[in-house]
Amino acid sequence: MSTEVLALSAPAPHAPLATTTIPRRTPGDHDVVIDIEYTGICHTDLALLREEWGAGPLFPMVPGHEIVGRVAEAGASVSRHAVGDRVGVGCYVDSCRACVNCEAGEEQHCLRGEVITFGGLDYAGERTYGGYSRRIVVDERYALRVPDALDPRGAAPLLCAGISMYNPLRRWRAGPGRRVAIVGLGGLGHLGVQLADAMGAEVTVLGRTLGKRADGLRLGAVDYRATGDPATFEELAGGFDLIVNTVGAGGDLDGLLGLLALDGVLVNAGVSVAPSTLHQPVLGAMRRVVTSTKNGGLRQCQEMLDFCAEHGIEAETELVEADRINEALDRLDRGDVRYRFVIDLATLAPGR
Amino acid sequence: MSTEVLALSAPAPHAPLATTTIPRRTPGDHDVVIDIEYTGICHTDLALLREEWGAGPLFPMVPGHEIVGRVAEAGASVSRHAVGDRVGVGCYVDSCRACVNCEAGEEQHCLRGEVITFGGLDYAGERTYGGYSRRIVVDERYALRVPDALDPRGAAPLLCAGISMYNPLRRWRAGPGRRVAIVGLGGLGHLGVQLADAMGAEVTVLGRTLGKRADGLRLGAVDYRATGDPATFEELAGGFDLIVNTVGAGGDLDGLLGLLALDGVLVNAGVSVAPSTLHQPVLGAMRRVVTSTKNGGLRQCQEMLDFCAEHGIEAETELVEADRINEALDRLDRGDVRYRFVIDLATLAPGR
Repeated sequence: MSTEVLALSAPAPHAPLATTTIPRRTPGDHDVVIDIEYTGICHTDLALLREEWGAGPLFPMVPGHEIVGRVAEAGASVSRHAVGDRVGVGCYVDSCRACVNCEAGEEQHCLRGEVITFGGLDYAGERTYGGYSRRIVVDERYALRVPDALDPRGAAPLLCAGISMYNPLRRWRAGPGRRVAIVGLGGLGHLGVQLADAMGAEVTVLGRTLGKRADGLRLGAVDYRATGDPATFEELAGGFDLIVNTVGAGGDLDGLLGLLALDGVLVNAGVSVAPSTLHQPVLGAMRRVVTSTKNGGLRQCQEMLDFCAEHGIEAETELVEADRINEALDRLDRGDVRYRFVIDLATLAPGR
Repeated sequence: MSTEVLALSAPAPHAPLATTTIPRRTPGDHDVVIDIEYTGICHTDLALLREEWGAGPLFPMVPGHEIVGRVAEAGASVSRHAVGDRVGVGCYVDSCRACVNCEAGEEQHCLRGEVITFGGLDYAGERTYGGYSRRIVVDERYALRVPDALDPRGAAPLLCAGISMYNPLRRWRAGPGRRVAIVGLGGLGHLGVQLADAMGAEVTVLGRTLGKRADGLRLGAVDYRATGDPATFEELAGGFDLIVNTVGAGGDLDGLLGLLALDGVLVNAGVSVAPSTLHQPVLGAMRRVVTSTKNGGLRQCQEMLDFCAEHGIEAETELVEADRINEALDRLDRGDVRYRFVIDLATLAPGR
């Protein structure tokens, strides 16, 4: 009851990706079959391929959870999408739909455990394979409308990087009169700057160096400072209402916390398995808040895509042909990309 | 331009307190002179007397920032209080009144630095001495009305312990439908249980052992669990919207964080200079929040006192005569008090 489709797959942790075929289920009444056009390369892909966050993800692994394509087939009961529509798939492809978090539209926090787009098992016990492939089959609820105003290539990274920034910016009220810092101008950060600026906040980028300063200002920041310069922490002390840290480094949080004003919030949007440390008096001095984030619910993902279409926000991308995937992953590991690799799935062909 | 008043003073760090006299300023037009009736003994007193949070507090030290008494004199321009009124003084006795935080009614976060009630300097450069004394002189703005419905002895600990719980409970919306855990049933915790219950929340106490279980339930908790029992962390996983931790231990926060539901908040109300550690995935899994708290603003302190009067909330106290102060501090250090020592300043006499 499945069809074989072309994919880029890693047979084991640390192994390079190679072209192979994987099974996709025969679409059910509520499923759509999506011909994938573009898939963004997220740092999560690299982390799971290399087991940086520990064992658990399943191999062989077909990564990719920033997926954009067109509906090729629609099951008999599908009502949200029609054949030919452009749709996107993000970090999960199912959830229990019944728990308090699913009912609240926070499917990414499903208490049964949402079905992750790759490297996991679905509720039927079948392997999930991600967007480094020609086709994917998902329940129509987990496919989002990609507005025509968005370029599909620049839209793909919105499905993870975009929502991972949009969620904390909304939750912690980025907007007029709010001073927002984005730490790290990478895949997440360059979207965060655009989003926070479009929401009306006053945006500062905190980069390790000033190397990307011109880009940061062009994307909407009013200031760009280097975290490698101790003066930054003196001059900007207490100056932000919200800091979204895209650098997943763990370690000491006191430095960034000191940049927050009363009731300021530090959101860690980068994943790290290393412990973070902080001192309670640094929190208490200004009643500061530390929190984290994990993509977003379906309703908010759609809202984010619509917001990006309205404000002309897309990822700045470098297109990767399928047979250069391993080189792209190595370059990503070195931070050598401005600002997101996107795989052109049209280049994925048998025997290459 | 000052008057000598009786006080219990420590000449140096770690030294026992002894009866002496200290200068109190001649009241200005906006000052009230307060005859102190009762002063609560806060763990902060002990920490500063023993420099547990580092050097900085000034000696000789007269501790005490949970002060209740009656107005004995009022300056010519005083309008808020009249001679004979019962008033309270908390953690600070002045603030700049001009910064953004003061203007927001958050004087405890004054950007100039609020003037702490003891162990510091006021804006004129004079030493501040706290409530372990017969009299204090403060600007009328920093004296709060103590409603007649409150017993002054049980009200004194509200000025620090009470507001330190009231502030986070309000800020993080303790109320009907919210599941609140109070960690530690001590001076802060036993007030926190009463306050959260009066706000309509469902309250659980997390004690180290079940030794104070009967008290916890009597004070308003619906459940009481031992943090020393690993089963507690399994059975209550994800079960709280708000945890207020009164145990100032620093250390690993992951255990308490695991008890929080989606968007749940851990407030550290106990001070610790030891570092705290946490793992971002524990935060991110349910978008949990870590924060801290630092007493409250004047407006909220008054609101808290009025709320306590309305709901019959007072500290459960053990009265201490002035000449037993050092014994009481030692017992506090061992946790041997249910639930707050309060000094009876009427017993403070010369030459004892």
